[in-house]
Amino acid sequence: LHNINKDERIDDLQYKGLKIIQKQGGFCFGIDAVLLANFIKISSKKLVLDLGTGTGIIPILLAGKTKAKKIIGIDIQAEMVELAKRSVTLNNLEDRIEIQELDIRNAKRYFKGIMFDVIVTNPPYFKKGCGILNPNDPKAISRHEILCNLEDVIKTSSELLAFGGDFVMVHRPDRLVDIMYFMRLYGIEPKVIQMVYPYEGKNANIVLIKAKKGGNPELKTLPPLYVYNKNGEYTKEINDIYERGELNSGR
Amino acid sequence: LHNINKDERIDDLQYKGLKIIQKQGGFCFGIDAVLLANFIKISSKKLVLDLGTGTGIIPILLAGKTKAKKIIGIDIQAEMVELAKRSVTLNNLEDRIEIQELDIRNAKRYFKGIMFDVIVTNPPYFKKGCGILNPNDPKAISRHEILCNLEDVIKTSSELLAFGGDFVMVHRPDRLVDIMYFMRLYGIEPKVIQMVYPYEGKNANIVLIKAKKGGNPELKTLPPLYVYNKNGEYTKEINDIYERGELNSGR
Repeated sequence: LHNINKDERIDDLQYKGLKIIQKQGGFCFGIDAVLLANFIKISSKKLVLDLGTGTGIIPILLAGKTKAKKIIGIDIQAEMVELAKRSVTLNNLEDRIEIQELDIRNAKRYFKGIMFDVIVTNPPYFKKGCGILNPNDPKAISRHEILCNLEDVIKTSSELLAFGGDFVMVHRPDRLVDIMYFMRLYGIEPKVIQMVYPYEGKNANIVLIKAKKGGNPELKTLPPLYVYNKNGEYTKEINDIYERGELNSGR
Repeated sequence: LHNINKDERIDDLQYKGLKIIQKQGGFCFGIDAVLLANFIKISSKKLVLDLGTGTGIIPILLAGKTKAKKIIGIDIQAEMVELAKRSVTLNNLEDRIEIQELDIRNAKRYFKGIMFDVIVTNPPYFKKGCGILNPNDPKAISRHEILCNLEDVIKTSSELLAFGGDFVMVHRPDRLVDIMYFMRLYGIEPKVIQMVYPYEGKNANIVLIKAKKGGNPELKTLPPLYVYNKNGEYTKEINDIYERGELNSGR
């Protein structure tokens, strides 16, 4: 049907006809990427960078949801880059999305003075050494800080972000102190956070953070977001986020 | 009736018969102090310090709610210290609470090597220069960082806290980055936070933080706390916090 391999599948994003190629049993995008893409407004003419783009899900969602001029996704894993490139082609988004095989730690040198208006990232959540079975496994590399850590991501973002530019991250709340500490250290000031709880009465398991390069210290904490209701179904807010694109697709 | 001045009043804390003397039109304790006192468990034999104790509300609530052996409250304002001392006497808590007139910045020297098991604080929330009418006004000193700032409070706490000791703070969420940055910098690792929202759908306006001297990085984010329901009445959770002492008073 399409240019996909045996161990791959094409998933319909249920959103403006967008599709994504994912590996069966590989690292598949989750609600995190959807919440991240929903957490930011990007106006036209903006140059956007996605650090650790994986399947390319975030650039593809942002291309659908925003008027961003150009979105560059970088990833260190050659096979993810190849997969993401095919998803970009599948969606006819080659004019707006560019996928590059690149180590975050070499990004500053690679982009040689290019400054981005917006940087987004859904980086590996887990510290190196926490329950890694196979450090060469692409899925492990996407989930654990094997090839880059949180400090690398934040330091690089600060170097590549224009003054006043936005940095948007989705992560685990258990790393929030690391996140805030390194953001402050590298001059990207957190401005808005939102805690995401799986159910009412449970501890938060996702945090969304919007920060500004050179911003003044003053953090806004949005109302909490609950993913599931008591019956285990998505809440209205989450359904709204998933459906927002469809509702707006006529405009 | 009691040893109070003309411009003062005695408020019943509705909690184990505890009372507090407050100044009419002065800085009166709010829900922050109650939430703070509720946010921590303190076992017997523990030595506790309250930085910027004001009316002494936190030591008095902690004496009622916990088995803490000794609670020392310090404050830089002589007239607050005098007021707090009378509240301690009024409650017959002189054996467990000690109030000292002391500048936080001199606390390390004053306590000469005494290490505390627990430090609590409800420090001034506002940065110096934000809407201060009269910098000599005791109410302004309690609310603004005129005589000490957040970094002073956290640095001093780290110096006075035993390794493994708990540090508990109530503050405004807009200062959360400052709080986490300075805690990490001075070796008091935030371990638990809870966001407090005035109403559902509003941004958080209070944050509770429990940190541990020398603790490992891993933050837990508790379910949000809402203060008022749609009708403008206290929620069940808040009523439970206010009433918990009464229910437990028989034990």
